Amino acid sequence: MERYLRENIPLSQAMGVQVKVATPERVLLSAPLAPNINHHETLFGGSAAALATLSAWTLLHLRLRVADAATRLVIQRSSMEYEKPIPGDVEALCTFDDATAWARFLAILDRRGRARLTLTAHLLHAGQRMAAFSGDFVALQCE
Amino acid sequence: MERYLRENIPLSQAMGVQVKVATPERVLLSAPLAPNINHHETLFGGSAAALATLSAWTLLHLRLRVADAATRLVIQRSSMEYEKPIPGDVEALCTFDDATAWARFLAILDRRGRARLTLTAHLLHAGQRMAAFSGDFVALQCE
Repeated sequence: MERYLRENIPLSQAMGVQVKVATPERVLLSAPLAPNINHHETLFGGSAAALATLSAWTLLHLRLRVADAATRLVIQRSSMEYEKPIPGDVEALCTFDDATAWARFLAILDRRGRARLTLTAHLLHAGQRMAAFSGDFVALQCE
Repeated sequence: MERYLRENIPLSQAMGVQVKVATPERVLLSAPLAPNINHHETLFGGSAAALATLSAWTLLHLRLRVADAATRLVIQRSSMEYEKPIPGDVEALCTFDDATAWARFLAILDRRGRARLTLTAHLLHAGQRMAAFSGDFVALQCE
């Protein structure tokens, strides 16, 4: 998964993103501070948003692959709450285990050729929650 | 301003960000597709969010510098609406000319030592609007 990200989304390489866990229920990515630092020597907000986006995108990409659904996956809307400045290396954690919502999502995708899912993720530093992400993703069935 | 960004926020260099216009009323940044591409060969959503964040941050940074206000500027919340996939080079445009809101912001900053301002920006490709950003920034007076 890390190689896939680095080859397909080169910014993930520039950010130094590492994939710690990548299952359909749980994705944990990490990034070092140095390439993502800002003028206050904390994490640049843009890097924070990009890492959180990647964690949610990766989880949904994996779930769709397991479901054998040939789709194009796009982000429609996202929001970030920057709760605390992040003074060092960072992790993005996205989890999803709502089997009912997932079954509904796949049924709608099958019926209408497109379906939307909202995923949430958090940024962590030294085990503490520092920021919250929410993103609406749309999967479009390939012709 | 471009040198400032590249030296202080190294991700802006990895993204190939160029500063086209940087005044207290109008900031226009650009970025090439190549370092910011995704697996669909369009702009990675994380790059889009980062570029929009930078445009708004730069505008507020310039306004505070002109106002001679020694502050620490942090982002508190942001949202992105990804309206269309961006198939090539991209620009982020942030404008602000609300003199009344600015005077109120400076008065609150002076009185309370901190003040918040919401800025909006758009992403453009070939002159067309492709995405919308909104961000709440907080300026904190330095001791």
